[in-house]
Amino acid sequence: MVSSTEAIYGFTPVESSAQRLLLSVNPTSPAPFIPVSATPIPDTSLSRRIDEYARSHLPVPTYNHSLRVYHYGLAMKSHLFPTWAFTDETYFLACLLHDIGTTETNLNSTKLSFEFYGGFLALDVLQKSPASDPDAVASRDQAESVAEAIIRHQDLCQQGKITAVGQLLQLATIFDNTGAYSECVHSSTIEDVTNHFPRIKWSHCFVATINREIELKPWCHTTTLGEDEFPAKVLGNKLMEPFE
Amino acid sequence: MVSSTEAIYGFTPVESSAQRLLLSVNPTSPAPFIPVSATPIPDTSLSRRIDEYARSHLPVPTYNHSLRVYHYGLAMKSHLFPTWAFTDETYFLACLLHDIGTTETNLNSTKLSFEFYGGFLALDVLQKSPASDPDAVASRDQAESVAEAIIRHQDLCQQGKITAVGQLLQLATIFDNTGAYSECVHSSTIEDVTNHFPRIKWSHCFVATINREIELKPWCHTTTLGEDEFPAKVLGNKLMEPFE
Repeated sequence: MVSSTEAIYGFTPVESSAQRLLLSVNPTSPAPFIPVSATPIPDTSLSRRIDEYARSHLPVPTYNHSLRVYHYGLAMKSHLFPTWAFTDETYFLACLLHDIGTTETNLNSTKLSFEFYGGFLALDVLQKSPASDPDAVASRDQAESVAEAIIRHQDLCQQGKITAVGQLLQLATIFDNTGAYSECVHSSTIEDVTNHFPRIKWSHCFVATINREIELKPWCHTTTLGEDEFPAKVLGNKLMEPFE
Repeated sequence: MVSSTEAIYGFTPVESSAQRLLLSVNPTSPAPFIPVSATPIPDTSLSRRIDEYARSHLPVPTYNHSLRVYHYGLAMKSHLFPTWAFTDETYFLACLLHDIGTTETNLNSTKLSFEFYGGFLALDVLQKSPASDPDAVASRDQAESVAEAIIRHQDLCQQGKITAVGQLLQLATIFDNTGAYSECVHSSTIEDVTNHFPRIKWSHCFVATINREIELKPWCHTTTLGEDEFPAKVLGNKLMEPFE
């Protein structure tokens, strides 16, 4: 059992295996069209601060990917996992920061795998209260939930558990990156999300980032997704090809 | 290619899959007896400081396990991976800190999975220079290598790469915890190591720790080893039973 605090920050344990999880939900109808306007970014000072942080640090394609992951994830959640109780804000923070470790600056400033460094950065930036807006800060629990999700967002396991917010982040990033789980999102949702946050050849950008990390850090955790297989899956993303 | 600095701190990328790695080495003779005296703890102020830190924070069974992992790992390395160039000091630091996240205090002071919290603690304690001994501090690269190994020490992957120091930490911890890879260490080595660092019913202690973490954090990464299967493997450690 998790406490209600843990639930609102997304610590509810769920199946780590996406296959098992999706088999267990069995929706009675297909995914409905959920426009971007139905999943607004949270109206909080913390969300605005982290949005600005991400916008100023991430290249545009990565920033747009982060926003797509937010909207796709909430669309999936409302259709398949309506009982998941975490706040949109917690999920938003995880989305905007999940690839913060992949900037050219950050790839070069650490030997840690990017997910681990990203989690570390997130813990720090979320809890550092700006003088101009002391309320725009995450509680320790919220920051740790975001960090845990970031650290595990490429940790694709076939057994065990993961936090609910971590699982949603995995599903939505894999959906945007490879086109897997296409049954979870209506095609008009994809069209609306990509209109608002264009891919700008994201498949090629992301493969370039994967290859860049492996070039700098050949030991990195990304290699466990398959040094050739994973880039091939990303480049073979037929679902998103019309929107590249 | 890794630089020589990266190699001495253990960043050399090696197979992540233990099975593939062990199949690739094919030693010409069985594992020799390597006594504890042949794998001394490093004679550096940093090693002494971290040894004292671990001794004062870890329960005795966990401290002894950490020392056994050090000696078993170096025995395996000299027999199977003699070209791995990292310093004994780097490996020692990783061993002594790899379970720092499992103390009752630390399990209760974070919602992060213990390996991730342990990695962050290690980064901090290794780079914090004590006033009494300013040289007893790790470089950033060394600290990150240790953190990366700690974060991934329960990340058992079938493909991709891992740092050499991270792989040795995995092999030696799994050996001590489950008795797997018994062909990699001479039985007299086990006898000598356990004489020096008694198990004190380690199998039961470790299962209690696994269960405690899952009780407090049912979403934790440890669950991906198998919530029932992993404790069963640990309790079924026939190799170490005579030394419990």
